Amino acid sequence: MRNLLSMEHLTNDEIMLILERAAGFEAGEISNLPRSYNVANLFFEPSTRTKTSFEMAERKIGCTVIPFDAGFSSALKGETMYDTVKTLEMIGMDAVVIRAKEDEYYNELLEGINVAVINAGDGAGQHPSQSLLDLYTIYKEFGSFEGLNVTIVGDISHSRVAKSNATSLKKLGVNVRFLCPPEWAGNFEAHHSWDELLEDSDVVMLLRIQHERHVINKSFSKESYHEQYGLTFEREARMKEGAIIMHPAPVNRDVEIVSELVECERSRIFDQVRNGVFVRMAILETILKER
Amino acid sequence: MRNLLSMEHLTNDEIMLILERAAGFEAGEISNLPRSYNVANLFFEPSTRTKTSFEMAERKIGCTVIPFDAGFSSALKGETMYDTVKTLEMIGMDAVVIRAKEDEYYNELLEGINVAVINAGDGAGQHPSQSLLDLYTIYKEFGSFEGLNVTIVGDISHSRVAKSNATSLKKLGVNVRFLCPPEWAGNFEAHHSWDELLEDSDVVMLLRIQHERHVINKSFSKESYHEQYGLTFEREARMKEGAIIMHPAPVNRDVEIVSELVECERSRIFDQVRNGVFVRMAILETILKER
Amino acid sequence: MRNLLSMEHLTNDEIMLILERAAGFEAGEISNLPRSYNVANLFFEPSTRTKTSFEMAERKIGCTVIPFDAGFSSALKGETMYDTVKTLEMIGMDAVVIRAKEDEYYNELLEGINVAVINAGDGAGQHPSQSLLDLYTIYKEFGSFEGLNVTIVGDISHSRVAKSNATSLKKLGVNVRFLCPPEWAGNFEAHHSWDELLEDSDVVMLLRIQHERHVINKSFSKESYHEQYGLTFEREARMKEGAIIMHPAPVNRDVEIVSELVECERSRIFDQVRNGVFVRMAILETILKER
Repeated sequence: MRNLLSMEHLTNDEIMLILERAAGFEAGEISNLPRSYNVANLFFEPSTRTKTSFEMAERKIGCTVIPFDAGFSSALKGETMYDTVKTLEMIGMDAVVIRAKEDEYYNELLEGINVAVINAGDGAGQHPSQSLLDLYTIYKEFGSFEGLNVTIVGDISHSRVAKSNATSLKKLGVNVRFLCPPEWAGNFEAHHSWDELLEDSDVVMLLRIQHERHVINKSFSKESYHEQYGLTFEREARMKEGAIIMHPAPVNRDVEIVSELVECERSRIFDQVRNGVFVRMAILETILKER
Repeated sequence: MRNLLSMEHLTNDEIMLILERAAGFEAGEISNLPRSYNVANLFFEPSTRTKTSFEMAERKIGCTVIPFDAGFSSALKGETMYDTVKTLEMIGMDAVVIRAKEDEYYNELLEGINVAVINAGDGAGQHPSQSLLDLYTIYKEFGSFEGLNVTIVGDISHSRVAKSNATSLKKLGVNVRFLCPPEWAGNFEAHHSWDELLEDSDVVMLLRIQHERHVINKSFSKESYHEQYGLTFEREARMKEGAIIMHPAPVNRDVEIVSELVECERSRIFDQVRNGVFVRMAILETILKER
Repeated sequence: MRNLLSMEHLTNDEIMLILERAAGFEAGEISNLPRSYNVANLFFEPSTRTKTSFEMAERKIGCTVIPFDAGFSSALKGETMYDTVKTLEMIGMDAVVIRAKEDEYYNELLEGINVAVINAGDGAGQHPSQSLLDLYTIYKEFGSFEGLNVTIVGDISHSRVAKSNATSLKKLGVNVRFLCPPEWAGNFEAHHSWDELLEDSDVVMLLRIQHERHVINKSFSKESYHEQYGLTFEREARMKEGAIIMHPAPVNRDVEIVSELVECERSRIFDQVRNGVFVRMAILETILKER
């Protein structure tokens, strides 16, 4: 694996190798990379968990992390993504982790760039390391994917998590269902009521309502979203035994889910964060060891 | 010691242990922590000396410091302090150092959080690591606290340094006096003239006039503050032998103190900065070794 | 060498020692510094390549790099450069690398400061590490400086690269010529047409058109600049055998140079970036080993 740009590029075998390696790291295995690699994290959008998780994963596999302040870089002077990444390559990076506002920003990096590129989120496109940590969380819970019912709830059309996960879960044999207001379905075939989905879901995967993308407006309040699509106490009680709740976070408490349920027994929301470090160690090691 | 949130939580014995350990570090002792701990510094307000001092102290005791850009984090998306800190805990932090605008922001971290929390300043509340370095500076100078006269000068009511120091200096037997314009006294009993305080002060502790909190206005200029409450050449000359000048910095030169006196013989202003690193090493080691 | 502030302070011998040491590092030599030094990078203006290059160079010679966020520091509270740098000295820095908006900001650091200061760009003043990497790039190419024709093209009067390079190239025996619109010549004697300069140039050194300094306006468009002063296919074809193209970057593609020529055979634009790391390792080692 040379880069990680989109879940669509990964075979099931490649996915499973990363999940198994993440499990190894969680069990205490250490990295077998032959040397220390240089990595920079280019985050052009605010992020706490993804950036910090990569920072930790990089150090745990022995990388040297070179700070890059995207909000104070030459990108402000209009430098192209190609020129920024090529510059970092010449400075000696082995890999760059990038989050950017533009969908598929990485297309301009496919030719002429020798540094490895790991996509940490592209606009409303993909978010493959989040998808892999979601898959790892499900895999740890159920031991396999075949035949599971996973319900993804929220702004499907704008969510890179929804897109990345839908792609890969289906390939792995999961029965993926979407639940959202009609105007947020985009090209996906979606349900608009919990009733058909709640009792047989093995995983309820809530998506963040992105205020910053202005998807909630006067005609559709937080309260009415919560009432129709939020995970309430009443709905949680109806979930089947062993079913789990996931959310990529940050959570809007009392919007996507009742605040008190964020750390309930079914919730894997903070476990996902913990799993993310092991998964990112596996991603980085897989890519760096081929260099 | 599990956290460091407020000087009010520390006994005199705990304070003295930290000061003795800081003295050990200054004398060249090295940390005896059993492993490398992961730490993140969350500074939601601008800071040079406190943040940089912690960054240095953390490295000197062998910590791995994971960068956290507060101005570009999910806090911008409205994430609660609890969720931010819990996320960092799941990513693998052992301790977080936090400066935030809200008084006692740490109250929401008292339950459910397992990572150690070190308060590096909460609004107009406390600033315990600054207080401990001030105590260390006095302790190095005089060898004890009992019976010293310490005069704290400035915006007492809004200063976290004044509050933290008043609490702990009194507990240690110091005679603490306040000097400020009547409107800045808050709940403290304060003097309004240097005359009763100058000649017998062992320590004159100047506070920063916080322009950014808008405490100086048209009716009260920098010049008139300097004239009435600033440390002028004339006042410095009247200070008793062996008395010292302190200031948490950054200094407004020619407001709290004449610029030329900032590095005069009596001044410990830059020594305080140096002492801060040893004190923060002691704080971090004390907290981390209990984990 | 105690500091690196301006190319005007360096003798030819000092320059050559740095270039030779850079060549050593490029050939795989490692640093012979006796210990790990503490360094902070204070960038008060946006930068990708200079800051990242220093960050890499510092790590490669074994420094501990203490993060400093200039956009979130006490400088925002009006702290002087002297007080900021003195504070970092007391915290334990051995050297600080500074980029600032003010010309010759370093004059206030000449007395009372014991930490080494490396100027990474002062306003419209100097940029000595860039100049040294440019010299190294030329030296690698031609083996010597004597008698070379170097043509510097662009906004000569505002460019710190032009100033730093003009100073040192002339001292080294280079025949330096300037090409720019008449209004950008400042105090330099400049040509205003490529015709006299193109065929005998060994080095064409393009400068960045600084939109952020508003030097292009309605009466002088990007297109007309490119037409009159840009490096077009036609001009590149007329350059003599072995002649090279340089640019400090970031490049405005299709303004200073046709986009497709940025990585042409003659171009050393990305090599310059790579060379910068070796040169900065040499600068840092030279300064730190005298401490």
